[in-house]
Amino acid sequence: MKRFPALALAAMTAVGVIGSLPVASGHAESEASPIYGVTIPPGYRQWELVGVAHEAGLGELRGVLGNAAAMTAYRAGTLPFPDGTILAKLAWKHVPSSEIDGAFVPGAATTVQIMVKDSKKYPATGGWGFGRFIDGKPVDEAQHQTCFACHQANVKGHDFVFTRYAR
Amino acid sequence: MKRFPALALAAMTAVGVIGSLPVASGHAESEASPIYGVTIPPGYRQWELVGVAHEAGLGELRGVLGNAAAMTAYRAGTLPFPDGTILAKLAWKHVPSSEIDGAFVPGAATTVQIMVKDSKKYPATGGWGFGRFIDGKPVDEAQHQTCFACHQANVKGHDFVFTRYAR
Repeated sequence: MKRFPALALAAMTAVGVIGSLPVASGHAESEASPIYGVTIPPGYRQWELVGVAHEAGLGELRGVLGNAAAMTAYRAGTLPFPDGTILAKLAWKHVPSSEIDGAFVPGAATTVQIMVKDSKKYPATGGWGFGRFIDGKPVDEAQHQTCFACHQANVKGHDFVFTRYAR
Repeated sequence: MKRFPALALAAMTAVGVIGSLPVASGHAESEASPIYGVTIPPGYRQWELVGVAHEAGLGELRGVLGNAAAMTAYRAGTLPFPDGTILAKLAWKHVPSSEIDGAFVPGAATTVQIMVKDSKKYPATGGWGFGRFIDGKPVDEAQHQTCFACHQANVKGHDFVFTRYAR
């Protein structure tokens, strides 16, 4: 019988433990988005907070999380964001708290929106690939055609990224 | 001349690197709060996101972060939260985005509010110690006397914690 070296066993155990962590989320992993081929990155719910937002027009609360490359760039003020940057915007319905007057809290999850910086892969869209997901499934191609146009029209001067780091 | 072992040098280097990370924040480390002696925990801005909120009555957006003990308890649904749990609520002014209509984003930082679970130290307040800080300085004792009363009146059934994990 073949035996695993101790290091391999330790690594397998570590993977097993990580794999079984109860990081439950309404935002599951996903198929790739049309046009861009962006997927929901594993473990994104454990990334650090960039900022929050209230999209009153859509009746949503948002939290934007960033991977390590994103957070390093935000904190250093680096623009454009480097290749490897990934941002994840989590959106929920903006619902009144049942526990205290005047407060609104996250209701049901609505979308997860991902931006991936890869200047070689996405030269025509400022180096960004986009993915918009509902229940872990990408929305249709027509919706994905609107992503870059809006980012380009409004936040070209901030490397096409709306969210700032909330200090 | 005494020489440091390699491991100690490596540890010192690591501490030096961590100490110099540009984790700038409007929420600096702090003196201890009155009544409870709670301080702003180092590194809290890098903790994971529990949830977000819009305090319309106060004109604020909020992001609540949790340390590792908090996140493990939230994901497992553990109540009461274990000793060692720390929650950090970051609050900013709720200001309209200058870049897109209908969106509100974080303005200036207003308060940082900390809850620390230590059932031995805080038996009279559900095991929780509270700290409310403006620009890294704790607010006065009168304000700290209101913390537990409100949490007790509204969320006793959720171990005195308002914020739920946003999935």
